[in-house]
Formats: sequence, C-alpha cells, structure tokens
Amino acid sequence: MMKEVNIGLIGFGTIGSGVVRLLKQNEDLIAKKLGAKLVMKKIADIDITTSRGIKINKGVLTKNAREIINDKDISIVIELMGGYEPARTFVLEAIRQGKNVVTANKALLATHGNEIFAAAQKNAVYIGFEASVGGTIPIIKTLKESLAANRINSIMGIMNGTCNFILTKMTDEDKPFHDVLKEAQKLGFAEADPTFDIEGIDTAHKMAIILSLAYGKKVNLKDIYLEGITKISREDIAFARDLGFRIKLLAIAMLKKGTVEARIHPTMIPSSHLLANVNRNYNAFHIMGDASGPVFLFGQGAGMMPTASAVFSDIMDSARNVLNGHNCRGPLRSISETAMTPIKLIPMDDIETKYFFRFSALDRPGVLSKIAGILGKHNISIAACIQKARGKRGAVPIVMTTYKAREKDVRKALEKIDRLDIVQGKTMLIRVEDDLN
Amino acid sequence: MMKEVNIGLIGFGTIGSGVVRLLKQNEDLIAKKLGAKLVMKKIADIDITTSRGIKINKGVLTKNAREIINDKDISIVIELMGGYEPARTFVLEAIRQGKNVVTANKALLATHGNEIFAAAQKNAVYIGFEASVGGTIPIIKTLKESLAANRINSIMGIMNGTCNFILTKMTDEDKPFHDVLKEAQKLGFAEADPTFDIEGIDTAHKMAIILSLAYGKKVNLKDIYLEGITKISREDIAFARDLGFRIKLLAIAMLKKGTVEARIHPTMIPSSHLLANVNRNYNAFHIMGDASGPVFLFGQGAGMMPTASAVFSDIMDSARNVLNGHNCRGPLRSISETAMTPIKLIPMDDIETKYFFRFSALDRPGVLSKIAGILGKHNISIAACIQKARGKRGAVPIVMTTYKAREKDVRKALEKIDRLDIVQGKTMLIRVEDDLN
Repeated sequence: MMKEVNIGLIGFGTIGSGVVRLLKQNEDLIAKKLGAKLVMKKIADIDITTSRGIKINKGVLTKNAREIINDKDISIVIELMGGYEPARTFVLEAIRQGKNVVTANKALLATHGNEIFAAAQKNAVYIGFEASVGGTIPIIKTLKESLAANRINSIMGIMNGTCNFILTKMTDEDKPFHDVLKEAQKLGFAEADPTFDIEGIDTAHKMAIILSLAYGKKVNLKDIYLEGITKISREDIAFARDLGFRIKLLAIAMLKKGTVEARIHPTMIPSSHLLANVNRNYNAFHIMGDASGPVFLFGQGAGMMPTASAVFSDIMDSARNVLNGHNCRGPLRSISETAMTPIKLIPMDDIETKYFFRFSALDRPGVLSKIAGILGKHNISIAACIQKARGKRGAVPIVMTTYKAREKDVRKALEKIDRLDIVQGKTMLIRVEDDLN
Repeated sequence: MMKEVNIGLIGFGTIGSGVVRLLKQNEDLIAKKLGAKLVMKKIADIDITTSRGIKINKGVLTKNAREIINDKDISIVIELMGGYEPARTFVLEAIRQGKNVVTANKALLATHGNEIFAAAQKNAVYIGFEASVGGTIPIIKTLKESLAANRINSIMGIMNGTCNFILTKMTDEDKPFHDVLKEAQKLGFAEADPTFDIEGIDTAHKMAIILSLAYGKKVNLKDIYLEGITKISREDIAFARDLGFRIKLLAIAMLKKGTVEARIHPTMIPSSHLLANVNRNYNAFHIMGDASGPVFLFGQGAGMMPTASAVFSDIMDSARNVLNGHNCRGPLRSISETAMTPIKLIPMDDIETKYFFRFSALDRPGVLSKIAGILGKHNISIAACIQKARGKRGAVPIVMTTYKAREKDVRKALEKIDRLDIVQGKTMLIRVEDDLN
C-alpha cells in the first residue's frame, strides 16, 4: 500500500480553497511524484458552513485550529489565514509540535520572521514560504537553491499586482489614478481599503523576506525606504512615454561595496526592458548574480490557483522531509539562523541614482536658468529637458532627467527650487533606473 | 571544525574552469550556506598543462578520470567533458561507486538518459543536471519542484543561444543568414561546424530532457519533430515584422487530451510576447501549468560563469545529500524511474496550428485564386494575405497566414501548389503561434 502523509489546513479562504481544489484536481499526479498519498486530514476556519464549491468529507472541517496543531498524525500544517494573530501563535505552536509549516503569510514573516525561523531551526522543522512572495513565481527557491553560489548584485521586483494593474491601465488607457483604482476595485484587483497595496506596504513585506534570503541577514522592515504610487499622475506617465520609459513600482535591492541599498518607489525604466513589459496584475523579478548574470522570472503574483501551486511546491518539499524522517533541505533562510546577523541598509540620503523631475513653473524668462542653477550647485547634472505648452498662462510643466546624483543633494535642491516664486506646487520626483542589463 | 565535502571534476574546459573559479570566488558564501566546506580534491582532463588562469594546488590535476571515480573520499563527481564516450562510462562507474553525479551533458542525457537514471535510482545516488538545459535558468528545478503539482499544458522554449543570436541579428540588422552566421562564428557564438546548433539538434537534446521531466515519461529523441533555422530568409523576417511577428526557433510541447505534441521549428510569435523579446544569445522558457498559469524564465543559456552557477546549484543540492547521509530530494526525473513509461508523441502530420506561407508566384491574373482554391480544398482558411512588388517581371512573393489547419493537409496542399506552372520554387512555410498567454 502507498504511504500516506497527513496534512492540515488553517484558513479556508480563497487560497485555502485553491489548495484543496488542486489536491483533488491533480491527486494522482502528486502521489506519483511523491511516491506517497497526501491526505487533507483537517481544515480549520471560523466559517465552516459557507460552501467553497468543493466536496469536503465529514469530520474534516473544524472551527478549532488546535485540532490540527495537536493532531499527532498530521505532519504538515498549512497556515493560510493571514494576519499577525492568531497566525503567529498557531505557527509557533505547530513548530513546537515538530510539524513542518507551509505559509503564504508575508506580513507575519516580515514582522515576526526572526522569532518564527529561530523556533523552526531549534525544533528542526521546515518552513515553506514560496507563496509569500511573487505568488506562483519560484523566487524563494531560486534565491535559496538555484542561485545559491552567487553573490546577488541586484534584485528588482514588481511584487504587487494591484499597483502594477493600476500603472498599466494608467499607461495604456491614459486615465487618472483614482479612476483606475476604482476600476481595479470593481474587478477585484484592489481591496476596498487599498492602502496596504498602493502605499507599498505589501511590497515592503515581500522585500524584507527577499533581502533576508539574498543576503542571509536579518532585515528591519522599517529600514526599507518606501514610497507608494498614489502621487503618479497621467502627466508623469505621458512624459515617461515621451522619454522612452515606463513607470513601475519597483522594489530595488543593490549590493554596493558590501553594503546593501533597499528601496521601493515608482521607477522609470526603459520601455524595452523585460520589467517594463510586465503588465496587468503580473509580478516579476530581475536578479543579477555575479556568476549567473541576469535572471528574470515572471508569473501571477496572486490568485487562488497560482498561489496554491506555490503552496503545493512547499507541501511536496515538506512531505519529502516527512518521508525521509528529517529536514534535509538547506537552511530556512539561505544560511543558518544562528549565523545570521542584522543587515545595515544604506540610508536613503546616501543612495545615488538618476532622477526625473517635473516642475510646475511660471512661463517667464529665466525660469530654466534659475532651476538649472540650483541643481548645478547641488552637483546634479541635467541629462535631458522637456518644456511643453509654452505660451500658456499660469504654471507649465518643465521636465528634466538627470545623470547620477545623490538623494540628499536632490532633496536639498528641490527644497530650494520649490521655494522659488516662479515655482508653483511641489516638484514631482521619480527615480530612473536605466543601466539595467 | 567545519565539515568538508570532497568533490572531483572531470573535464577542465570552459565550464569546468568556471566551476573552479566560482568556488574560489565565493568560497565563504558557499560554505556559509552549506554549513560545510566544498573541497575540489581532483580535476581530470587530457590537457593538464595549459593554464586556465586559476591557481590549482599540486596533486589536484590528473589525466586519469578514474582517480576521481575510485577515490573513496570524493562523494560528488562533476562531469563536464561532454560527448557520449567516455562520459557515459565515467558517469555509470561513478554511480556504481555510490557517488552523486552533476553533469551539464545534454547529449548524453538525451541519448543515454534511461540507462543513466535507472542506474542512479538503483544505486540511490542523485544526478544533478540543471546546467544541461537553459544554462543558468532554473528550468529543471522549476519543473521538478516548483511546478510539481501542476499538469503542464504547454512549454515553449528558446533553448539555443546560437540560433537566437543569429535570428536577432537578422531581424535587427536586416542581414542574410550566412553573413550573420559568419559574424556569430567570429564572436564565438557559433562553432566552426555550426550544424549541431543551427539544425536544432542541440535544442532537440534539451527538449527530450524537458519532456521527460514535464510528463514523467521516457522520450525517444527521434520522435521529436525537428526543423532548423537555415532556410529563414531576410524576406521572411521582413514579412514577419509587417505582420506584427518575430521569428524564433521555438521548442514547443503541448498537452492535447492526454497526449503530447513536441516539435522544434522556426516559429512566428507576436512581437509583444515576452518570448519575442528574448534577444541575442539569451534563452527563455514559457510554461503553462494548469494551476500556476503562465510562468516565464529567462537568462543566459550558456557561457562559463552562468553555466557554472547552475552546476553549483546541483553541487550544493548533492552536498546536502552527502551531509544528510542519503538522497532526500525527489525522484530524478519527476517520478520514479521504475514508474516511467514511454511517451507517445502526436505524429507531426496530425498537429494543428496556424501557418505563414510565402509563395514565389508569377505575377499573372488568377494566381491568387488558384492558390487559394487549393488551400480551400484542403480545409485551410486564409487569415491574411500580402502581395508586394506587383508589376515586376518574374516571380513575386505572395504571403499568407492561415487559421488553424492540420499539418498533413498543409503539406498536401503545398505539394500541389508547388507543382503549378505559375509557382516558382518551393513555398516557404513557417508555423505561427499567436494564442500565447
């Protein structure tokens, strides 16, 4: 008879239903690959009455997650409830019970990762978290295993489908942010309260996880520079197009002489780059390893079945641990938890990159020279300049791109420029990354 | 003291040198991730005198591969000599000695895979072959592990950098095939005898490996339909551009009602698709899983350091097996070798796809109606038609694209058309894939 591995699921929402559905759909295939049968022994959720459109055997559903955590026959616990508590407590209890844990909970791992991974290493259990970043994209495995021998020189990621959907629609249909946001909400690509996505917080959670894997260091979420997409206007998108760029919310990590720079902000990238062509709600990662060179991964960053696919990759890895009697994969976050040290990120003030500025200036003689003068005094060299709609009354946009400059200098210069009589309103700043490979 | 894992390398060519170089370059990083030190104990090659620009300790180099295979302290053998023999013999001997084997030898695995993997399973050793397909791209691991719970509905791959370099140059610089081939040879992107690459044989080897992983079946190399890029003309590339396509040498696998279609040929794909934007010598894979949806992977398909990066991912996986005392990864080719059955591929005659035809026809009244008539009789519907350079003497190109048609019908129709008095020379046929996701 075929061996069986019992699994338990906490959280029977969209992703949870996808996991149950996928097990039913490809049960034979999964058993063939594993050489064992996966049995969904118990499913816990506060709502055990609403139909998920899947037949569940009697006695499988429970309101009590501890029926799973304390079940000696269950060796893999899948946490898909989301949020901090009671998810954290359940995960820690499962670890202490010697169970492998599979989770898609990026908020939990970004905030309580140190505690959870330390507990897992101490109890010699495995934590699978492929689904926590990039949905179906195998970014976790690629960083931990495939590129394991590489020094990671940079990672650029489009990690939030909501933001990418909004920016794509704004670009393709020339619509303002708020109209597109409403559409995204209607289509289910944005939450009723979209703050978490559009302000970049979700991306920051994912970035914290990625950074810990890429650099084998503990990351303080608060140290990652963060800027959402709410200020991006149709004008900026149109100017970007004129300059041969597209605007994406990028999470950027770069190794700079042994220290790491990590920032999340709307970014102009050349429209021919692979990342610029990641549209709608897709996610993607562009990784530069010192040996591998550029590696680009693309796929659905969310959604029931794509995320279930990633959860299953972890379930199957965990099941092999169970079948082999011990955790025989690598360290949970690239290097041993006990060897991990905190990472010191480069302060945003000290980063150097290229910039796009959109000034709102009165159309008077000498405006350009005043602005250019202040930029020059702060060591900011102008690469290109566009001045449109000349001759109008009131403020007109003046657009500039720069060569590499220091963020601190840029802030100081803009502060001064924004105080000029001839400048109306705050200058728009978008960072430009154009020496991508 | 840190544990040590001894490795031995057979084949000190370009990739072999890359492996040695990468171990030196990132020794600390690798040791940290592994929790053990990798020691390159022996390197075998017929040439042990030419400098590879890397310092090698005394006694490490040998002309005798069996010094590695029979060394009881070496637990991982890296075969990077290429070719069928003695590579096959060495790999089989290493397996019988209970050693994990890492290889980049696609020709060997595509031809002798069944024998080698069966021996490895019997001896409970691991075979790592990430570098055999797609260079640095983690395609093997993605198929075996990340997408393990998916039914693979299709895979489309650009698996040969030489062909992609040539097609890119032909497209971007409007140059004929033979000029670009010469350039590629000068730049080291094509061999002096380029047959293996440009006729698609190298792609077929890689495809055979991919098919066995995606479908858990044994594949007969000869059953894969194969067409190289030597017949592609500047004209075809220009017409493709006019129609919104780019031409790529694609390896295509599709699941059709439980059976599999596998073919390698120049293919027109929409110029906006990610695969169409894989340029120069890069490789890429577009995989459609039933749960994951589209997953796209991109990177260097060859080259010293990118390939060494993939070899190292296998070395580190193997080292974890050694440190754990047994092979605790999944089956070598997705499912157990003993459970694998031969795959029956759909005969090329029976496949259905869209087509591009370029006829060389005399510019006379009724030509189009004659050609269209024959196509219609064979159930081939025309989607678009371009007729250029009308009014010239002699033959002019008439270009058509079709809706989905059966390959057998297409061949029969073209045979008849090519026998018409008004048609001069053989009609060019390029398959079109435009309903990609």
